[in-house]
Amino acid sequence: MPMELASLTDCIRPQLQAVQERFAGELHSDLPCVNVLVKYVSRFHGKMLRPCLVLLWGKACAKAGELSNSHVTIATVVEMVHMATLVHDDVLDEAELRRKGATINHLRGNEAAVLLGDFLISHSYHLCSSLESQFASRLIARTTNEVCEGELLQIDNRNNLNLDEETYLKIIDRKTASLTAACCLLGAHISCADETVLRKAETFGRALGMAFQIQDDILDIIGDARDVGKTLGIDIEKVKLTLPVIHFLENAPSEHRQLMRSLLQSRDADKLEKIRNLILPSPSIAYAREFAQRYVTQARQAVSKLPPTEARQTLDTMAEFSVNRPM
Amino acid sequence: MPMELASLTDCIRPQLQAVQERFAGELHSDLPCVNVLVKYVSRFHGKMLRPCLVLLWGKACAKAGELSNSHVTIATVVEMVHMATLVHDDVLDEAELRRKGATINHLRGNEAAVLLGDFLISHSYHLCSSLESQFASRLIARTTNEVCEGELLQIDNRNNLNLDEETYLKIIDRKTASLTAACCLLGAHISCADETVLRKAETFGRALGMAFQIQDDILDIIGDARDVGKTLGIDIEKVKLTLPVIHFLENAPSEHRQLMRSLLQSRDADKLEKIRNLILPSPSIAYAREFAQRYVTQARQAVSKLPPTEARQTLDTMAEFSVNRPM
Repeated sequence: MPMELASLTDCIRPQLQAVQERFAGELHSDLPCVNVLVKYVSRFHGKMLRPCLVLLWGKACAKAGELSNSHVTIATVVEMVHMATLVHDDVLDEAELRRKGATINHLRGNEAAVLLGDFLISHSYHLCSSLESQFASRLIARTTNEVCEGELLQIDNRNNLNLDEETYLKIIDRKTASLTAACCLLGAHISCADETVLRKAETFGRALGMAFQIQDDILDIIGDARDVGKTLGIDIEKVKLTLPVIHFLENAPSEHRQLMRSLLQSRDADKLEKIRNLILPSPSIAYAREFAQRYVTQARQAVSKLPPTEARQTLDTMAEFSVNRPM
Repeated sequence: MPMELASLTDCIRPQLQAVQERFAGELHSDLPCVNVLVKYVSRFHGKMLRPCLVLLWGKACAKAGELSNSHVTIATVVEMVHMATLVHDDVLDEAELRRKGATINHLRGNEAAVLLGDFLISHSYHLCSSLESQFASRLIARTTNEVCEGELLQIDNRNNLNLDEETYLKIIDRKTASLTAACCLLGAHISCADETVLRKAETFGRALGMAFQIQDDILDIIGDARDVGKTLGIDIEKVKLTLPVIHFLENAPSEHRQLMRSLLQSRDADKLEKIRNLILPSPSIAYAREFAQRYVTQARQAVSKLPPTEARQTLDTMAEFSVNRPM
């Protein structure tokens, strides 16, 4: 049931447009070589999930549903942060495909990709520091601290065939859910939501991020690169264990576990296909889906008590959508 | 005439100690794998030139020469920023040696080095955002924007044998001098210096940074790795033209220029040695040294009108020292 997220976000369309313009304007440089790279990275905008979260929570909590210029500023900041992580992730993963186009590292080399990621993160902090209050600067920087920790914990566990569920959840909580939580919290904060609502925003964003990342990890194993539009099988290639594989290695019959362990460590050209064939008939994919579904339920509960607005409805649908998407 | 910078900074010794402690404390994580990397990077502290600039300008401008906790905070911030650039630079340069020890990328791989750099920069912004005023956050982020631009301009000009002096100066102004200028400006700003003094601080820092970088580039060609303690010949290896080579290619006799161009493009194992032997008898090294010396004079003029304190004297000596150092 692939739903079109774009039509869902009609109520924040002008602001999403403003985010794209702000993004390009802030990153514009007097150096042509910088602008070439920035133009290229702008192709990666995609669905702009994180700006949507800022704007929708802003709208759901704002008096008369009015969004301010600060909402657009923060939505642009989180898009820059996210883009920076994508660019550096692609370096780490040696990925070649992103949003159906070549990655920066593939096109311009790892060096340009490292520096472009740095340039994006620097501009995100710069834009954030233009706001009156330090609240957003502090929260964004605390969040990027967590994102880096999640990524560092993840690479520390590459090739660890004994990675457990608890550590996996800690990794995705920090590298993904901390940012989506910050997006929702900041959107609501700028709309002057009260403490109870701020906590719900944070809960929603964190649960959505967890569900989203688990679904991403499932697709990395069983998705179709043509639908998903990015290099798949990367987790398998880099021996980063994710929820379905962790479950399989803990619960499958002993000879299947053994086979999975050898495949993960092998340099077999058909490794991904063989792992797919091994895991698909097992209950491990369904287990991971149900795990994600519980986060979806948690997220939906967190918005259920908000006043009934179009923004609230969209947040609810986005939560549902996070585990029912091909991409 | 190698002078010992350490003995120069006696008047800020307790604060430099506090910077190291703050650095370690801020970067401490609940994840052991993160702490291992942080502990490793702490070995790179070296002379802490940038924290010294914050503290010395702070002291030179402060009423009764008293430094505040904010000076220590900003000094720690700039050390984190600088460390982040070192770690990412070593990835870009594929360097193996830094401060007489193995680089992070050499020891733990490029991926850990990219993420550790991100972790350092994120923590620098986080610490900066803990200050009352947004002034430092804005200036630091604007400065890191410039540093990234300088680095991007530099890699865009790799293999450009026609790089001119003007572009070279733009590169080093952004990648190096922008940060040293920000250090001096912030130190003076926290001490509530007036507008005239702030401008002098900025001028001093920028001129010192330019002199320092030109000297660094000279040493990369003619230095001794045992003295300098880091991988040398990197600019030659990566075909990044610096001032001596730019001057040589524009002014040496035609057959020497031709030989330099072929050497720069060759994969000769003795490339660095041959380039040294070609450039040493020419006036190009002296030209670059005199160029750096003019920045030193500019920097020394900028401090000459400050009240005669030990801090001012140290700044003056540091400027002199920047082009008379083996490291």
